[in-house]
Amino acid sequence: MAVPVKFSGMVLNLFVLLFLVSVMNFPAVSEAKIRRYKWELKYEYKSPDCFKKLVITINGRTPGPTIVAEQGDTIIVELKNSLWTENTAIHWHGIRQIGTPWFDGTEGVTQCPILPGETFVYRFVVDRPGTYLYHAHYGMQREAGLYGSIRVSLPAGVSEPFAYDDDRSIILMDWYHKSAYEQAAGLVSIPFQWVGEPQSILINGKGKFNCSSLASPSLNVSTVCNVSNPECTPYALTVIPGKTYRLRISSLTALSALSFQLEGHNMTVVEADGHYVEPFVVQNLFIYSGETYSVLIKTDQDPSRNYWATTTVVSRRPVTPPGLAFLNYYPNHPRRYPPTIPPPGPVWDDVSLRVNQSLAIKARQGIITPPPPQTTDRMIVLLNTQNRFNGFVRWSVNNVSFNLPHTPYLIALKQNLLHAFDQTPPPDGYDFKNYDIFSVQSNENATTSNGIYRLDFNSTVDIILQNANTMNEKNSETHPWHLHGHDFWVLGYGPGKFDVYNDPKKFNLVDPIMKNTVPVHTYGWTALRFRADNPGVWAFHCHIESHFFMGMGVVFEEGIEKVGKLPSSIMGCVHRP
Amino acid sequence: MAVPVKFSGMVLNLFVLLFLVSVMNFPAVSEAKIRRYKWELKYEYKSPDCFKKLVITINGRTPGPTIVAEQGDTIIVELKNSLWTENTAIHWHGIRQIGTPWFDGTEGVTQCPILPGETFVYRFVVDRPGTYLYHAHYGMQREAGLYGSIRVSLPAGVSEPFAYDDDRSIILMDWYHKSAYEQAAGLVSIPFQWVGEPQSILINGKGKFNCSSLASPSLNVSTVCNVSNPECTPYALTVIPGKTYRLRISSLTALSALSFQLEGHNMTVVEADGHYVEPFVVQNLFIYSGETYSVLIKTDQDPSRNYWATTTVVSRRPVTPPGLAFLNYYPNHPRRYPPTIPPPGPVWDDVSLRVNQSLAIKARQGIITPPPPQTTDRMIVLLNTQNRFNGFVRWSVNNVSFNLPHTPYLIALKQNLLHAFDQTPPPDGYDFKNYDIFSVQSNENATTSNGIYRLDFNSTVDIILQNANTMNEKNSETHPWHLHGHDFWVLGYGPGKFDVYNDPKKFNLVDPIMKNTVPVHTYGWTALRFRADNPGVWAFHCHIESHFFMGMGVVFEEGIEKVGKLPSSIMGCVHRP
Repeated sequence: MAVPVKFSGMVLNLFVLLFLVSVMNFPAVSEAKIRRYKWELKYEYKSPDCFKKLVITINGRTPGPTIVAEQGDTIIVELKNSLWTENTAIHWHGIRQIGTPWFDGTEGVTQCPILPGETFVYRFVVDRPGTYLYHAHYGMQREAGLYGSIRVSLPAGVSEPFAYDDDRSIILMDWYHKSAYEQAAGLVSIPFQWVGEPQSILINGKGKFNCSSLASPSLNVSTVCNVSNPECTPYALTVIPGKTYRLRISSLTALSALSFQLEGHNMTVVEADGHYVEPFVVQNLFIYSGETYSVLIKTDQDPSRNYWATTTVVSRRPVTPPGLAFLNYYPNHPRRYPPTIPPPGPVWDDVSLRVNQSLAIKARQGIITPPPPQTTDRMIVLLNTQNRFNGFVRWSVNNVSFNLPHTPYLIALKQNLLHAFDQTPPPDGYDFKNYDIFSVQSNENATTSNGIYRLDFNSTVDIILQNANTMNEKNSETHPWHLHGHDFWVLGYGPGKFDVYNDPKKFNLVDPIMKNTVPVHTYGWTALRFRADNPGVWAFHCHIESHFFMGMGVVFEEGIEKVGKLPSSIMGCVHRP
Repeated sequence: MAVPVKFSGMVLNLFVLLFLVSVMNFPAVSEAKIRRYKWELKYEYKSPDCFKKLVITINGRTPGPTIVAEQGDTIIVELKNSLWTENTAIHWHGIRQIGTPWFDGTEGVTQCPILPGETFVYRFVVDRPGTYLYHAHYGMQREAGLYGSIRVSLPAGVSEPFAYDDDRSIILMDWYHKSAYEQAAGLVSIPFQWVGEPQSILINGKGKFNCSSLASPSLNVSTVCNVSNPECTPYALTVIPGKTYRLRISSLTALSALSFQLEGHNMTVVEADGHYVEPFVVQNLFIYSGETYSVLIKTDQDPSRNYWATTTVVSRRPVTPPGLAFLNYYPNHPRRYPPTIPPPGPVWDDVSLRVNQSLAIKARQGIITPPPPQTTDRMIVLLNTQNRFNGFVRWSVNNVSFNLPHTPYLIALKQNLLHAFDQTPPPDGYDFKNYDIFSVQSNENATTSNGIYRLDFNSTVDIILQNANTMNEKNSETHPWHLHGHDFWVLGYGPGKFDVYNDPKKFNLVDPIMKNTVPVHTYGWTALRFRADNPGVWAFHCHIESHFFMGMGVVFEEGIEKVGKLPSSIMGCVHRP
């Protein structure tokens, strides 16, 4: 007698999942590993740009240690919060957290903050190869120095679609001498006090501030700012002549859009946000906060000298001096100055240069990436505006300035705590017909809310980021928007007001790149598409630290009913009855 | 048939309690009231001494609002934490919290910290008249400006044992331009960076820093320091000539011991820490952090002018300029400068002057205060030392440097979480015979611990604070020790090493004052007695902010089994299973 074999749906799904995982992610023989990190957060005095200030360190360092893993590995970070009175949370930027939406690290969205004295354990799988980031996602703590890189390689035996001899990570940051709290206090002041331009640009955590500008009869400048401090020795990217290097370049700036260049060396862009790019060559790479790129360089120049690596501010008037590092041709001394002056960056206010790079980024041909759905189920147009609300300056999306609730959405939704946040969703659009994006608008109906967008599970969603004029005449700013829990297809960029009837016809549905962070250029629009297929609650926001703090973000819920049991560790701010 | 009336023990006790309450506390007709306060904590830029820095405000102010109540009233403070990423807790200094040990506000001892976005409700009875204080009891937040006064008057119809026309509160503070975090970072650095002397002394939240000392070519000084800022207009204590005023003078300094004086006016001390004092006259009042005094003054001087109120640093070399305010004789203009120069304070390093004031403070004769028990059940001698531990500079008590656990003791003990803290109690004494308190000692067996003293409920406990030499030659510092949950009898002060056999014979068991904060003078000892009759867990520590942060404290448990059900609101840091 044949025994009827029954699989429950869940068991069957597990089988299918295991099969898919084995086919898609582990084509070679390697085995997924567990990679365990023990990190302790502290406030310490550091001098990243020679100016001494209090920063948040991980195991004594800023930026923190690089997480190095292979595709499919499980990362465990035991995070001890030794800040005295301050909580924290760390976001794993670009990691989709499939099956672990509670470890996305977004305070107020996916978890309660981690208290001083607590050890919180993050545990998640890095399911895709590529270049990713991590950083605090609580208040404006990222600016205090809590950030670092994640590098996920392919399993042994599997090759990238390009060849290189070695790879290097370069993480870019802008740097303020005021504390994150001092900046935040200004942002919520009446009158508004803007954070201003950063004092320095850091390349791998090192910059050089002009200490002599602080000279004062009452201050022994060298105690607070000392250009000879080894902590601010410029970063040296040491290379061997005649090789090909993969540089993983990423930015977590608080504010600045940057251009990065290597004197005398072209760069071939091959990866963006963990996806392979149809290669294209640049002399300078534009990079926005939250983006990562891999470029290939050949060390084929005169080997008897070093070269400048420079990064300059674009899109805003560059008050901040360029960040400088050395491309060090071995065996020249790593601190030997190049015989040249650092090359100037591109013209800061030529938007077309940056739009052209955006348009140049396409998915690499012949690489199997999921093709975009050819139609959408829902289109949400997000008008980005700056406005005044009760005397405060805020950023708004469709006239709604976002604020975070005390109880994280993930917990509120799973536990059906309907009073934890505003149940009215923000609007899917704005007054397309009458709103003038090219001039200062009063935005008099602006409001603040913590309402969220509820998306149908597995539906396809188009997001149109629509830029506009700020509160200043003839001014529109570049905003890099970052989506948690997903990669999205970048369907197009355009100038002016998005035309909901005609512009979708121009969408690139053939070879759009997938990314997790994308700029909306001045007075323009950017169109994205994603599948709402990751059960959880996900932030989507401008990655400029002060802009999100001022309300420039939204939150998406999808498939909340499919989210498993939440770990109790994320619930520290939800009181027992 | 007679119905037997049975009272349960609890009901009977309630009757007895009500009877006692009505007899002792409400001899007149007044009724206890509920006084409700809604406070919001924020970080804001303020210029208390003309220098602009970030401070913690309550409803926009530092110091915060004065709580004004009558004896027996219930105080309800709804505290909204709107600090961005920082927790808090507020201690009600001098309020014994009888029956409400969970609302003492001591983070790590009686409650978990209050998270950003939370509203925590403190609810307690002010059962004794007098002058009390409140302040943050978490990290070093008190220094960030989170402090204020509590004034509890007698019920209507009941008189103080002295007469006055009106009363005024004066709260003294020292003020640093570095943030509490910057100071804390120095204290835990290797090499150690001491916080140094404060920049200013504030009288009722106002001081005057010499802004011109900041002059710098790169800094527009007036943007950060402006002596014309109305926020730093000197405090004017406005009085009408020919009257008697009660001045409630208190200190919550981070570091400094102070002398307070009113030019041309003697002060008659009548109250200390909420207890009536046998009146004595001073020209300058020495006051340590955590102490409160009431003094009477007569406005009997030349009414055509104003007078200086000054406060100067004593016990440490006074690098900080005196704090200045105006004693303003109405109708002279409150900002009219006195025609004199401010009177100098007493010699800063003459310890005998300060010991003499300590010795002068006795309980007021004829006022019924509980007399001290004539014998003790236990004597704990606490040797105060400074020492090095693993390269860090720490303060220790009997060679144990205190640190707070993550789970508050009150919760750990009630829930029997034995692993939440070290179950080994610290020692009751030190090596009396061999330890030389007059020279630098190596204290090589120093350790850190969060172990606590367990006291027998209702026992009488003597505490001897024993001072010693610091790590610097010929240096001993004054420490004001503050006990939570109790008043203690001050049985005596003496020079040198306490003699456990002979010195107790000299204890004042006749008319000792009761206090909650008391100094231990340089190279001397101070003897206290209290009844362990308040079920709960109570901190006892040096009130110098940086000293407690560096380990100078102990914790007492008594009658934990008598503590009622803990409110869930204090448990935010204790995870659900």
